[in-house]
Amino acid sequence: MSFPLRRRRRLRFPGVLAILAILAVLPVEGVAQIPYARLAGSDAEPDAWLTYSGNYRSERFSRLDRIHRGNVHRLRPAWIHQTGTGGRVEVTPLVADGVMYIAEPPSTIAALDARTGRRLWRHDPGVPDETLNIGFPRVNRGVALLDDSVFFGTLDAFVMALDRSTGDVRWRVPLGDNRIGVAITAAPLAVDGKVIVGMSGGEAGVRGFLDAYDAGTGERLWRFWAVPEPGEPGGDTWEGDAWKTGGGATWLTGSFDPELGLLYWGLGNPAPDWNGDLRPGDNLFTCSLVAIDVETGELRWHFQFTPHDTHDWDANQIPVLVDAEWEGSPRKLVILANRNAFYYVLDRETGQFLRATEYSRQTWAERIDENGRPVLIPGMDPSEEGTLVWPSLAGATNWYSPAFDPNRRLLFVPTREMASWYYKSDAEYEPGTPFLGGGERRVVDEETFGAVRALALDGSLEWEFRQLTPAVSGVMATAGDLVFSGTQEGNIFALDADTGEALWDFHAGGQVRAAPMSFALDGEQFISVAAGQSVFTFGLAPDASPAEQP
Amino acid sequence: MSFPLRRRRRLRFPGVLAILAILAVLPVEGVAQIPYARLAGSDAEPDAWLTYSGNYRSERFSRLDRIHRGNVHRLRPAWIHQTGTGGRVEVTPLVADGVMYIAEPPSTIAALDARTGRRLWRHDPGVPDETLNIGFPRVNRGVALLDDSVFFGTLDAFVMALDRSTGDVRWRVPLGDNRIGVAITAAPLAVDGKVIVGMSGGEAGVRGFLDAYDAGTGERLWRFWAVPEPGEPGGDTWEGDAWKTGGGATWLTGSFDPELGLLYWGLGNPAPDWNGDLRPGDNLFTCSLVAIDVETGELRWHFQFTPHDTHDWDANQIPVLVDAEWEGSPRKLVILANRNAFYYVLDRETGQFLRATEYSRQTWAERIDENGRPVLIPGMDPSEEGTLVWPSLAGATNWYSPAFDPNRRLLFVPTREMASWYYKSDAEYEPGTPFLGGGERRVVDEETFGAVRALALDGSLEWEFRQLTPAVSGVMATAGDLVFSGTQEGNIFALDADTGEALWDFHAGGQVRAAPMSFALDGEQFISVAAGQSVFTFGLAPDASPAEQP
Repeated sequence: MSFPLRRRRRLRFPGVLAILAILAVLPVEGVAQIPYARLAGSDAEPDAWLTYSGNYRSERFSRLDRIHRGNVHRLRPAWIHQTGTGGRVEVTPLVADGVMYIAEPPSTIAALDARTGRRLWRHDPGVPDETLNIGFPRVNRGVALLDDSVFFGTLDAFVMALDRSTGDVRWRVPLGDNRIGVAITAAPLAVDGKVIVGMSGGEAGVRGFLDAYDAGTGERLWRFWAVPEPGEPGGDTWEGDAWKTGGGATWLTGSFDPELGLLYWGLGNPAPDWNGDLRPGDNLFTCSLVAIDVETGELRWHFQFTPHDTHDWDANQIPVLVDAEWEGSPRKLVILANRNAFYYVLDRETGQFLRATEYSRQTWAERIDENGRPVLIPGMDPSEEGTLVWPSLAGATNWYSPAFDPNRRLLFVPTREMASWYYKSDAEYEPGTPFLGGGERRVVDEETFGAVRALALDGSLEWEFRQLTPAVSGVMATAGDLVFSGTQEGNIFALDADTGEALWDFHAGGQVRAAPMSFALDGEQFISVAAGQSVFTFGLAPDASPAEQP
Repeated sequence: MSFPLRRRRRLRFPGVLAILAILAVLPVEGVAQIPYARLAGSDAEPDAWLTYSGNYRSERFSRLDRIHRGNVHRLRPAWIHQTGTGGRVEVTPLVADGVMYIAEPPSTIAALDARTGRRLWRHDPGVPDETLNIGFPRVNRGVALLDDSVFFGTLDAFVMALDRSTGDVRWRVPLGDNRIGVAITAAPLAVDGKVIVGMSGGEAGVRGFLDAYDAGTGERLWRFWAVPEPGEPGGDTWEGDAWKTGGGATWLTGSFDPELGLLYWGLGNPAPDWNGDLRPGDNLFTCSLVAIDVETGELRWHFQFTPHDTHDWDANQIPVLVDAEWEGSPRKLVILANRNAFYYVLDRETGQFLRATEYSRQTWAERIDENGRPVLIPGMDPSEEGTLVWPSLAGATNWYSPAFDPNRRLLFVPTREMASWYYKSDAEYEPGTPFLGGGERRVVDEETFGAVRALALDGSLEWEFRQLTPAVSGVMATAGDLVFSGTQEGNIFALDADTGEALWDFHAGGQVRAAPMSFALDGEQFISVAAGQSVFTFGLAPDASPAEQP
């Protein structure tokens, strides 16, 4: 039987079509390497987004300005990548040399053509179904790039390096034992020759740590323990064996000052949650920011936001490094809005406390004293009958990234106005099970809401953009005078960085939990953000009116 | 502790924002009813999309022309609904009075605000995990609307009516027994006072049937058996007890001629698949189109495309009703491109065979004779060692809807150019298990491809738009001279209806299996189509240049 196209009146074989081009092979071999110098100098290369928080200072600020207040209304999806799973996508994509690197739940890494969304390769490390995720979802928040490798951690606690061009495995080393609850959900941070990897598992009573691996071989170079042993500095803030199951997970990506050679990393809450009776003392270094020598893993300084935490207020929020005048002198600062509802300014060379201000409603501390220690309001600990406290267990903010506009010197903080009833109960440590001394019931009423808040360096409020529900989405700022974020309800929006006025939004149909990022290809700027089970990439509609100018 | 907004320099509470409006309550009570007259007269109401295939003739043709060849390049996603599951979305959305009704896998129904994608309500009937889906995915392809109810079927074989305003259950009746493999994946067809519901389960050896239910009460009004008992007309085309497990599922939505009072419904393959030795005879009414009296469920006529099928070539493809001149006289026709690679024209009053032409490569029939019966090529039956036959098991087309442009009189057919090796084996019927007499191995080589083909009424080819892989996506045509469809690779595209030239495409990042539909709100036209795990709604970017004219 012959091929039966009997009357080809106007038969056409369309030529160069996007629909076919999307399957063409992009040459991914021979792409430029990503040496450490590119990571350290990423501000000079705004077309790329090379590290989780955009640069080592964790500003999450794009220096691209092609999308701006005058044209952001024309922003529309350029392409969408659906992961095809029912799991949450919480990744911040990285983009280098036209390729986007993402993580899909639980621990699959994919490289996409950043222009079309076409997949170049995908690596699924085969996380077993029985992998424990105690106290956190089965997510992966991103990868790190260095030289020609992609680094990431798996839910079952392996650190891996893939070939950036092919997705082939270079090395795979165990970070910890998932059977006792150790897992990796955070994006690693790659520095000169090293990959810094945090871990999750505080709610399983794991003793937290932060690791550095040799980028080339996967050899572990050092480990910093988030909870000291008896006799070590800070060891006197624990009693008995409590330190052995003390928590302090390092479950979000920190920041880095190449000049000082210091990593800044937030540490999680002590274990068990809520019941502080089981672990008397300040429980260092839980709920602290630590400065760690990148070469040796040694502690340079620590600052504890919430000593002896009983409300699950991890201090894993992203620390932002700022060089600024402070009370008349130039100073190297680190700032962050903590889950405990206070905004902090510290000297990042010494850890000296400089300032704290409330940025969200709280009912647990009278004030922060001159040493940075909270003066507690009595009776706000969890109790058997329940204690009502602001903020809620999820905090006044959480892991959702803030953004810092270095020109305006504004920190944009996703904020949660919400209270919880906190309960206390007994807890006994059993490896690989939740180690929880109580629980929580969230209050949802007319006082519950969310906001993106713009804080000046001193913590004063510049503006806020309110949302009906507490914020769950990260934030990014751009040189286009815009602030991007999202909502639980599935909206992605852009605000005027000067006023907080909403200028654009798009309904993506799935919770926005991750933070946006931005990149450019051939002069065209794009915004990417995960929502629901997908990654969205937005660009300007092609028919710009010539009257529009930045 | 007071609320600490200390220095509200430019504090703003943005006013009426999309981001807030999306949560406002749309008044869904008191919406206009959808009487039968609206369904029968749906061509006069192009803003809505009231039945699975767009109208009772199943044209899947939108009479909206606001989106046209001159502006389709400006089409971009207006909003996206992510189902949040890993399951396939294969629904054709319906839109009435500003509300979109969709089905999510496996059998959840949701009403969305058609302008924003905001969900108004959702009903999950709680399909048990152990529900059988033998021979088909766990999908739901849509709902039917009538009066103030939404009708659908569940994977576990219940027919349900929901309140259109609230999603509350009105009635729920069993259609069959899922323990032997009966299921519902097709959208019902609502007619005057009745809901017509097809079933799946042919691969489990279920004896197929088509049901009519009272729209108000759920009472079953009639059942048409797709396989007759011995002694009934057609009963002599079976031997022994083979008819009891004979297949002939009614798993896709049919068409309706209100004037003739006839339903046109495609019937599935005989069971068991591939091994015809186990069921000698023509196996009526499998692989047939049947015309059924809508009042009584009685068979008016049948036409069998593939007697004694051994290649799994169901005849469930959507039949399109066309009134046209045929050989000099006006005639009521029904046309369809069959899975067996032939396009057919029948008289829809009598079932008389008028014409068949190959529209895709096939190697199983010398020709179709003057009665419409294929003249077989010897040796093309499945065998133990394998027999290579075109088309593949999935056919030259499949359930993916065609579209018919009534102005151009062109049928747009998603086409699959692919061969299979067909194998034969023994089969024994065991209730609730696959009843398969063989298997298939698809051939993927340089001769494998897909296309949207435009067929004239006589079956001649007007044009084709080629795709790299066999078509899996439905098609819609519009009065804007456009043809919309998609690809396995996740593209959604628009073609020029005159030439097949590709004018626009968007990468949606997930397989497009369903067919597009179109609707309008306040004069603005939208295109919706499921892709991956999401439903996409596209509209024109707002900044039209005034120079653009239809």
